Amino acid sequence: MKYLLFILCFYNIQCDITYIEVKYPLAGKRSPPNAIWPHPQKIDISNDLLYIHPNDLKVYSNIENCDIITKAIERYKPIFFPPTLDMHHPPSDTDNILQNLTLNIKGNSQCEKYIELNSNEAYNLTISQKIALVEANSVWGLLRGLETVSQLVYINEQNYVVINSSVHIIDSPRFRHRGVMLDSARHFLPVSIIKKNLDVMSYNKFNVFHWHLVDDQSFPFESKTFPNLSRAGAFSRDHVYTPADVADIIEHARLLGIRVIPEIDTPGHTHSWSKSMPELITVCWSHGKPYQAIYSVQGEMEIFNPSEPRVYSTMDALLREMKERFPSNYIHLGMDEVYDKCWLSNPSIRQWMVDNNILSTKSLHKYYADRILDITRNLSVTPIVWQDVWDEKVELPPGTIIQVWKDSSDNIEFASWASYLNRAANEGYNVILSSPWYLNYINYGKYNTDASVMNLEFFKYYEVEPLRQFSGSNEAKQRILGGEACLWGEFVDGTNLLSRFWPKAAAVAERLWSPAHINNSEDAQFRLDVHRCRLLRRGIPAQPILNGYCGNYELGMAKSMINHPAFNYDNAVWNDKTVQSSSQSGKVLASLSSSSSRMFSYNVYSILLLFIGYFYYK
Amino acid sequence: MKYLLFILCFYNIQCDITYIEVKYPLAGKRSPPNAIWPHPQKIDISNDLLYIHPNDLKVYSNIENCDIITKAIERYKPIFFPPTLDMHHPPSDTDNILQNLTLNIKGNSQCEKYIELNSNEAYNLTISQKIALVEANSVWGLLRGLETVSQLVYINEQNYVVINSSVHIIDSPRFRHRGVMLDSARHFLPVSIIKKNLDVMSYNKFNVFHWHLVDDQSFPFESKTFPNLSRAGAFSRDHVYTPADVADIIEHARLLGIRVIPEIDTPGHTHSWSKSMPELITVCWSHGKPYQAIYSVQGEMEIFNPSEPRVYSTMDALLREMKERFPSNYIHLGMDEVYDKCWLSNPSIRQWMVDNNILSTKSLHKYYADRILDITRNLSVTPIVWQDVWDEKVELPPGTIIQVWKDSSDNIEFASWASYLNRAANEGYNVILSSPWYLNYINYGKYNTDASVMNLEFFKYYEVEPLRQFSGSNEAKQRILGGEACLWGEFVDGTNLLSRFWPKAAAVAERLWSPAHINNSEDAQFRLDVHRCRLLRRGIPAQPILNGYCGNYELGMAKSMINHPAFNYDNAVWNDKTVQSSSQSGKVLASLSSSSSRMFSYNVYSILLLFIGYFYYK
Repeated sequence: MKYLLFILCFYNIQCDITYIEVKYPLAGKRSPPNAIWPHPQKIDISNDLLYIHPNDLKVYSNIENCDIITKAIERYKPIFFPPTLDMHHPPSDTDNILQNLTLNIKGNSQCEKYIELNSNEAYNLTISQKIALVEANSVWGLLRGLETVSQLVYINEQNYVVINSSVHIIDSPRFRHRGVMLDSARHFLPVSIIKKNLDVMSYNKFNVFHWHLVDDQSFPFESKTFPNLSRAGAFSRDHVYTPADVADIIEHARLLGIRVIPEIDTPGHTHSWSKSMPELITVCWSHGKPYQAIYSVQGEMEIFNPSEPRVYSTMDALLREMKERFPSNYIHLGMDEVYDKCWLSNPSIRQWMVDNNILSTKSLHKYYADRILDITRNLSVTPIVWQDVWDEKVELPPGTIIQVWKDSSDNIEFASWASYLNRAANEGYNVILSSPWYLNYINYGKYNTDASVMNLEFFKYYEVEPLRQFSGSNEAKQRILGGEACLWGEFVDGTNLLSRFWPKAAAVAERLWSPAHINNSEDAQFRLDVHRCRLLRRGIPAQPILNGYCGNYELGMAKSMINHPAFNYDNAVWNDKTVQSSSQSGKVLASLSSSSSRMFSYNVYSILLLFIGYFYYK
Repeated sequence: MKYLLFILCFYNIQCDITYIEVKYPLAGKRSPPNAIWPHPQKIDISNDLLYIHPNDLKVYSNIENCDIITKAIERYKPIFFPPTLDMHHPPSDTDNILQNLTLNIKGNSQCEKYIELNSNEAYNLTISQKIALVEANSVWGLLRGLETVSQLVYINEQNYVVINSSVHIIDSPRFRHRGVMLDSARHFLPVSIIKKNLDVMSYNKFNVFHWHLVDDQSFPFESKTFPNLSRAGAFSRDHVYTPADVADIIEHARLLGIRVIPEIDTPGHTHSWSKSMPELITVCWSHGKPYQAIYSVQGEMEIFNPSEPRVYSTMDALLREMKERFPSNYIHLGMDEVYDKCWLSNPSIRQWMVDNNILSTKSLHKYYADRILDITRNLSVTPIVWQDVWDEKVELPPGTIIQVWKDSSDNIEFASWASYLNRAANEGYNVILSSPWYLNYINYGKYNTDASVMNLEFFKYYEVEPLRQFSGSNEAKQRILGGEACLWGEFVDGTNLLSRFWPKAAAVAERLWSPAHINNSEDAQFRLDVHRCRLLRRGIPAQPILNGYCGNYELGMAKSMINHPAFNYDNAVWNDKTVQSSSQSGKVLASLSSSSSRMFSYNVYSILLLFIGYFYYK
């Protein structure tokens, strides 16, 4: 009885199927407009539909005073009933109408504040007898179930809001850690974009936002303890995440069931620290001179100086602040790509190494890592490190998470990320996988009229099997916590983050949530295409992955996007076409005056902001 | 005396230099905020600056009643004085103020209506004695000069509007045909996006919009003669370019000095025609049966049937309509990628070939091409064809333009596009180059901390030298008309066109406009980075090419982009947080009602539209 939806479209109410027209028909099954992404563990769906009354759908719950749930319902209201689309009331001669949506928590569970690594995200969704019921052991399961309900709802061609009348879904995630990493240092990412990206993550059941906060290029994170770090190290005084911004992002993520894990990458990637704390950073030497930047090899100052005691007192205070401000209780310590040649170039560091019997830069890196890991141990936060530090044989405290991002290494023998995962998990480490999911790489492969290779990228990300080389105990398997889709920021900022990342990152979302056997990428591309259209409908400019279109609302969206005053201010100041006469070499065609224009355009903004503010804060 | 601008920044008025912070310093010179793109032929710039009074800059011209000029001045007003930025009046104690901008046409030239292939786009720009003077032989030169003036103007860190006090620029394009090709068939491109893209083209001195209107996937072009083509062949009845839309786009382009060349691609790429005119399309056979689609090889109907007389009468009427509606008097006929196996699979076509002594599909293609070229000859329009047809030895009428898009061919011997250009030009054909400029391909190469390879794509497009293998007469050289940056639509629609295409396409713009010796890509990347920030300031979401940032306005832009009601309607309908009590299995948390929300959000729209309308139509 699974997936009769496609047949259904010719049966009861006509479906609003995404139209895909390609020269050479694609292999695989087309997907119905309510195909679910990521695919649930088990799903049975009837061949009948119910209407939903856009003015009269009650939502019940047995859990009271729980902001996670009340805010979720508010959030999903415009997703169920998009204000930009026309919707009809159900026909008067039918009682095939969904009566209510109930979100019930099982047993004695209570509202929770923050999702955790081991939170239970399972849920059951049943639609029967004109009632939709989501049941879960935790509010997080209810959130995931509500997202699934929202994906089942669609607006058909006759503008009725409909949902299947008989549904039974049993669902839970395959992996616990399903993350997205953004880099706000190569380019500053506006808070609004980060929050919008969190929304899209929740539409894909991601549960971790790994925030690569700072790097060589800039230090946008405003520390309360060391405010000079961002004052000097950010691109400008406005390219900064204030404490209020960070709290806003954490709160936004909290309500979506997403943990925020900050990364303070050291000892490398710390050039931006040198603007305010040069005493912590190694001076690179060359040809007997200090402060020598060499193009494409080193900056004049690079990486922490492990011989400097203030490095550790500073890190202790900063990590203490991170622990206080980021409730996830995880801190990513970076520790990747240590440029040891700068250490070796510096005479005083060389002398200090000799004095302390540290005979290689690997040992020096280990010395540094040990001291920082001591700090996190004392703070009782769980450290996450890029794999480099384990590759260099640093002994990591129990519970440390290793993030695997390479496919080979000079320092440790492994054939691929898959064998690395296997080995680390079997040696007792928790691991998360990113090697195949660096979504900043873009490779479509060669252009080819064979449509199956055109969206190569999707296939590449989707067909990853994290456990493909795993062999070991069930306990060891549990230590493969999941993975992260990473978007490094060299070519990404507010202009293109959302369209570049989505819907590609959704491939990773399904791989980490859905059962391993949901891996037919030929079919999945159509379901993802439907999901992409869903993202568009929700206001996310996710780029296309197949030829075709998403329905007429895409037209309006593009139009309003381009007509926005911020993107088209020439419209807003089009108020002076007067042609004056003149005595000079010709006619004065216009006075290029802007003051009155500006006044008017500010008025537009004020009124718009006033209205948005009204709805937002009310 | 060239390019003292960088020194200047520490001299007179502090410059608002784009900040670029990279781990390893990039090679090459940083660029000042008023660096010009594409680079002029000759430029001398002083080391002093003038203020510009944002309320009092007069514009003069000796050309009267010319909409090209009056509309350009209106267009540039908000570009000189961006309404979203604060600007100060010049200090009261200075008279270093630009007095006026004069746009003068030389000799007896008059206002023209449409730019043509051989229009004169040269201009001289002089700033001296507090007066900026653009002189040109045609209004098109004045347009190009006005764009250059607008790039010299910037707003410094103290919020003064400034320009160099002594400038002498002599400028003209290297190539006559500097085009952008967009594909509106794989995905529909909203009119507003096409028009916005025309704006960006004008900022880069492009002068041809090659519009790949229709293809297998859809037929969005609404023909007056054959309205059923789009009625049946478009993605939906709204995914259509009406006659008014097309006229709107042509008019928009006309005012920017851009020719619009439509492409009706035949005999291949015509699957969408089969929806309304199946009689024109070849039925593909397989295993003795008609209408056989074979995955990734053929559709059930493919390519025109050259044995069908109605093909030629239809094309005659349609091309006649195209000539009437597109004033450029050029029509691109496509003629690429003819899938001859479908022809051969069809018994009646095989019989017809025998009957007519046409003994190969190449000859059949030639037969078709000859008849279509006869039509264009009779209509006196200049045909453009993709190179395939010449590769197949079809004799082309004099004046035909061959668009080179391959780097090798089975049908004609050539080592590379460069030798192809050389040969075609020497054999008397006009040619335009696209092979190295398919900007839908995305290849960054391997990620590398060496910043110089990170923006590989830019280098790849920029370092093309169209004449690198040319040897022949000056007359033959003139037949290499220019080139086009092509953006095929498989993965492009309104969500990502502007951010994906820009600023990459600007690399092609400079190659086609600037002298050949302006080819230092290490330097050019910084100038392009400045230009990218300029595009952002003008409301174009051009993606980043280097690390860093563009000033604070980028923050506001991203914020307003994401807060736009069309992209964030959940804010606009956030007006019902009431929690009601209930008697069912728990509490009613909310009624998912949308009607009142919609009313409110329409109010936001109404007021916004009212204001935009007010400025637009005033």
